[in-house]
Amino acid sequence: MTGPIEFWFDFSSGYAFFAAQEIEALGTRVGRPILWRPYMLGTAFKVTGARGLSSTPLKQDYARTDWQRLARRAGLTFAPPADHPRIALPATRVFYWIEGQDAALAVRFAQGVFAAYYAGRLDTAELDQVAAFAGGFGLDPQAVAAGAVLPEVKARARNLGDQAVARGVFGSPFFIVDGEPFWGADRVPMMEDWIRSGGW
Amino acid sequence: MTGPIEFWFDFSSGYAFFAAQEIEALGTRVGRPILWRPYMLGTAFKVTGARGLSSTPLKQDYARTDWQRLARRAGLTFAPPADHPRIALPATRVFYWIEGQDAALAVRFAQGVFAAYYAGRLDTAELDQVAAFAGGFGLDPQAVAAGAVLPEVKARARNLGDQAVARGVFGSPFFIVDGEPFWGADRVPMMEDWIRSGGW
Repeated sequence: MTGPIEFWFDFSSGYAFFAAQEIEALGTRVGRPILWRPYMLGTAFKVTGARGLSSTPLKQDYARTDWQRLARRAGLTFAPPADHPRIALPATRVFYWIEGQDAALAVRFAQGVFAAYYAGRLDTAELDQVAAFAGGFGLDPQAVAAGAVLPEVKARARNLGDQAVARGVFGSPFFIVDGEPFWGADRVPMMEDWIRSGGW
Repeated sequence: MTGPIEFWFDFSSGYAFFAAQEIEALGTRVGRPILWRPYMLGTAFKVTGARGLSSTPLKQDYARTDWQRLARRAGLTFAPPADHPRIALPATRVFYWIEGQDAALAVRFAQGVFAAYYAGRLDTAELDQVAAFAGGFGLDPQAVAAGAVLPEVKARARNLGDQAVARGVFGSPFFIVDGEPFWGADRVPMMEDWIRSGGW
């Protein structure tokens, strides 16, 4: 089979940042395209009743330790804004507006958003900042800012998230390949084993 | 360093079952003793506000799928009681009563509890059943049943859990080695890398 690996994530999910660093290389290794799918994790939290890591006692301290540990091992910088997590709805809407015109460019934009947000250089919650950032990808910031709030773009971003949650997506990162769900950056190696072997 | 790997778990945690299958072999490979530490995960939930996987929408369905997937890969049977998770307080207290007399026997008992509960052959919430099960380890079931409800045994089980949560333990399985926390069965390989390398 050659179906895509769906990569569901919230730009404000630290573990999604780490998954985003390796997912395209995995896709290349196993011969599968990656379908980048930002969504608002809060959509899932409304169904699960869960809270984000960063607002959960004990887990928030562990996550901060763990993110830095993962970053040191991978040689990455992990320095999101002090008030992480920001509500990345503007970045999510801009992604889908770009995707409507150029899917490959939308992926490069998403990778850039991860890089900039986790370097503390982009507030994904501020549409003006996100639109200006998109200018670095050859897009017109004013067109981006206007496009992100078009009713059809807002609806597409919302509906894709709702549909994902209805299919059982509840975390970030969350992958679906050949109908099989894999939750968490830690599960990427097992997902690769699954794809290579055809499952077990 | 040669300090122990603390292995915190709730007998009713499916992911702890999988970690329990491999943790002693890991300890042998890296030359570290394993300190088996059952506790009531509900103690942590009171602090984090989290709920168990099995009572969380979407996550519960994913976990059921994932446990069977892990079991198939490892060649294990994963068949807990239909009303899983049971409240394993009796099994936890019996563990600490046994440990007070013979720590190695307590580990074998814990491994036996995992094997029996996840084969649907033991209700860890019923002290009479747990005491009878302990009889298979050369213990007197009546002495076990009486020992598990001694005030000092009940207090020890409770206090160890409280102290763990105060140190940041919030999940199952949850490991601490040389002061470094690792949460989740998925993190066992990274913990091994950490121990072998001395950390990074």
